[in-house]
Amino acid sequence: MAASHGYDPSFTSAVIDLMGPKTSDRNREIMGSLIRHIHEFAREVDLTPDEWTIGVNFINSIGQMSDSKRNEGHRICDIIGLETLVDEIAHKLDLEVGEDAPTSSSILGPFWSPNAPFRDNGDTIVRSPHSGRLALMRGRVTDLVTKQGIPNAVFDIWQASSNGKYDFQDPENQAPNNLRGKFRTDKDGKYFFYMLHPTAYSLPTDGPAGVLLNMIDRHPFRPAHLHLMISHPDFRTVTTQLFPSDDPYLESDTVFAVKHDLVVDFVPLEGDDKASLQLNYDVKLAPKSMKTISSL
Amino acid sequence: MAASHGYDPSFTSAVIDLMGPKTSDRNREIMGSLIRHIHEFAREVDLTPDEWTIGVNFINSIGQMSDSKRNEGHRICDIIGLETLVDEIAHKLDLEVGEDAPTSSSILGPFWSPNAPFRDNGDTIVRSPHSGRLALMRGRVTDLVTKQGIPNAVFDIWQASSNGKYDFQDPENQAPNNLRGKFRTDKDGKYFFYMLHPTAYSLPTDGPAGVLLNMIDRHPFRPAHLHLMISHPDFRTVTTQLFPSDDPYLESDTVFAVKHDLVVDFVPLEGDDKASLQLNYDVKLAPKSMKTISSL
Repeated sequence: MAASHGYDPSFTSAVIDLMGPKTSDRNREIMGSLIRHIHEFAREVDLTPDEWTIGVNFINSIGQMSDSKRNEGHRICDIIGLETLVDEIAHKLDLEVGEDAPTSSSILGPFWSPNAPFRDNGDTIVRSPHSGRLALMRGRVTDLVTKQGIPNAVFDIWQASSNGKYDFQDPENQAPNNLRGKFRTDKDGKYFFYMLHPTAYSLPTDGPAGVLLNMIDRHPFRPAHLHLMISHPDFRTVTTQLFPSDDPYLESDTVFAVKHDLVVDFVPLEGDDKASLQLNYDVKLAPKSMKTISSL
Repeated sequence: MAASHGYDPSFTSAVIDLMGPKTSDRNREIMGSLIRHIHEFAREVDLTPDEWTIGVNFINSIGQMSDSKRNEGHRICDIIGLETLVDEIAHKLDLEVGEDAPTSSSILGPFWSPNAPFRDNGDTIVRSPHSGRLALMRGRVTDLVTKQGIPNAVFDIWQASSNGKYDFQDPENQAPNNLRGKFRTDKDGKYFFYMLHPTAYSLPTDGPAGVLLNMIDRHPFRPAHLHLMISHPDFRTVTTQLFPSDDPYLESDTVFAVKHDLVVDFVPLEGDDKASLQLNYDVKLAPKSMKTISSL
């Protein structure tokens, strides 16, 4: 492709070949591919010095807007779909056509906490005031291969409140671990607890993410979603998100996390004074012996 | 290539296609190519979540180490050859095979100043103490097509001092505009002035540039060089650098600025009490009517 643009095609190899002998094999593979693709990009679009300067200033602005509580580098990667792609690469199983697949993974995002408390089945993760609708979530975690329930799987859930903020973004309104909790599945692989119907929210647009979204004429919204991480020592952990099927941003999630099997229906719940909605969701876990494509 | 790796090849198109209708044609071209290449890079190397996280942290560190006097984003681009490639794209002329070429361009770098004073031919740009060797530089600026001298061309030179620093990096030791100056060619296109034999120096390695260079086992040195910008209203401006032929870093310039026709010999000068070395260098400028490849 380089040659077809009239520029010296040997230059890129010269840059790559300057890597020294102490470069690890993996770093050589990664940096060789990255340098080659960045060069091909510049040749393909005939990148001008002024455009390159805009890019340099943009890269510098990413770190300048980031701190221990804000990660614009992460956000920019999400906007260009890179975190979702890396998630696919890490988790896509080497399945035959037609073979049953486990629950799809989706990106972890920046709001998972390692400190969420264990709670009992039937408990609620709603611990602070809100203006949302309460929902009962229930379902079963099963073995993809045997179809049997998996007892003692850990079902970790976290979600934003009805104002679109997670507990540690919103300490004035939310107690620590509000809308977070870990549950253990029972002997049949079942779990159930109370939560909020999730709420759509915008990424912060006062930094580089906003600049990029404006440049490519995209909105900053994530569809309403809840986060899940389901784990058991004998199975591949699934980190994922679920999305109400009536959300207007399903087709244009600004971080590209939506997959078909992750779109769910909240249905009316009657006869339960703790909630007016219900979500049934079963999870299929793959045994650890199944290989991902990237590990082949 | 995506398909051959087993990952969903339609994902990248979905990301690109989300760009809205108000995206400019040029932004759509640039971002489409950039997203496609970044995705292909991730698929090619099966980029892992941990490696991606290292990359995010590295990107954030670039801006965090940059300020009004330090541009790590620029430096990282230089280390991967991107500024040199963009310079080639901007300046490569659409020449027939065997056709005479103008003086090669090379990157501007971060140390050019718009405020360098005009000086008279025969003057010196050395205005502050140093430990280097003095040299007489002389030559002729000619029209690539007619081979005639170009009168009244502006010959702008800047260089680091013998300690490897430019004036505004080194205000304790160097007066403003030390080792900078603009000269006008005479009626025959000739110029001459006194300067220093240049000195090799290291890029700063206490930031992300140092992290990257260490990762790919490369030294941080630039070969000794002097910077030139030669301009005239009727000709394409040439911004370039010249390198002494005996420099040990010619083949491994950390910013890839060296080209064959920019390597020069400083020769002993006798009978001149102002300098012990001489550099003869003629410059060929292309008329503005000649097209670059990227403008076609």
